[in-house]
Amino acid sequence: MTTIDNGVNVQALLDAREVLKGAPEAAQFTWRANSKWTTGVHSTTTIEKFFGLGQEQTHKNQTEYASDHPAVFAAEDNGITPIEYLLVGLAGCLTAGVASVAQNRGIQLRSVEATVEGSHDIRGILGADSDVRNGYNDIKVTFHIDADASKEEIEAIVAQSQKRSAVFDALTNPTDVTVEVA
Amino acid sequence: MTTIDNGVNVQALLDAREVLKGAPEAAQFTWRANSKWTTGVHSTTTIEKFFGLGQEQTHKNQTEYASDHPAVFAAEDNGITPIEYLLVGLAGCLTAGVASVAQNRGIQLRSVEATVEGSHDIRGILGADSDVRNGYNDIKVTFHIDADASKEEIEAIVAQSQKRSAVFDALTNPTDVTVEVA
Repeated sequence: MTTIDNGVNVQALLDAREVLKGAPEAAQFTWRANSKWTTGVHSTTTIEKFFGLGQEQTHKNQTEYASDHPAVFAAEDNGITPIEYLLVGLAGCLTAGVASVAQNRGIQLRSVEATVEGSHDIRGILGADSDVRNGYNDIKVTFHIDADASKEEIEAIVAQSQKRSAVFDALTNPTDVTVEVA
Repeated sequence: MTTIDNGVNVQALLDAREVLKGAPEAAQFTWRANSKWTTGVHSTTTIEKFFGLGQEQTHKNQTEYASDHPAVFAAEDNGITPIEYLLVGLAGCLTAGVASVAQNRGIQLRSVEATVEGSHDIRGILGADSDVRNGYNDIKVTFHIDADASKEEIEAIVAQSQKRSAVFDALTNPTDVTVEVA
């Protein structure tokens, strides 16, 4: 018998599920980002600390992310466009889900790749047409997965990943966002 | 008279708005991300090309973004959590808007910092309670802005940035996301 190993500690996740059922306050996480404007539309956002399991937590490394606009928007392109970060998060979240679900179902993955495409009518953000929304019109994710499984099994893994994805939910359903000046 | 310079070419944006009013097809952008699974819940997403103004475009640099889960999720923390990328995008988008609107209104910025916090009940993604959503419960953005302007003027700039923000819209309103296996 071959051991299935996608590198996901599924037992720890199943244990956490049981523990958090009886300790909902420990399940309340706060993720944080701190940004500083550089110049123009260029800014840098730092991620390091978050709150969860009832206490302050720190990522292994502090990381920085540059945002800017491309040259076609008359900017310097010193970082990706902010809206592209949503595609990064979506790809990472669905891929993590694929690995976790495959592990839980005893299916060995060999490779998982995804292409994410977001359609965006920039007349919205430019104020050229008030009927055009500011955000994406729609987003399409295409997975290429090589695994010891049938096409149907792979499709079922992807469907389950989508069903439990934090970022998929955040993009397909509305979230209250409050913006304040200190 | 002092020249106001926040580094934003507002005239180019106003010109683009006028041009795109008569050329809606040129305003159709497609932003793209390509991700590859590493192991566990760790993946790497690459951003380089996009489509816009009727043709293929390329960022000045190809950039890579690591996604993983932290140690408290029994993972390796080789990158930020996918849902944190949404906060990066939100901070970058609202900050770019603040700089652009301030430039358009002739207000000199000295510093712009933002803290973004997303509240997340992880019982959703763990499947511990089907009444808990997978994504953020809510997101709060707090700006600290030093500028040659009154508190009211600064608040008005932030409000206008929010009104034209692609990422603010993408998080506060639903978007269709289609996920397929090739």
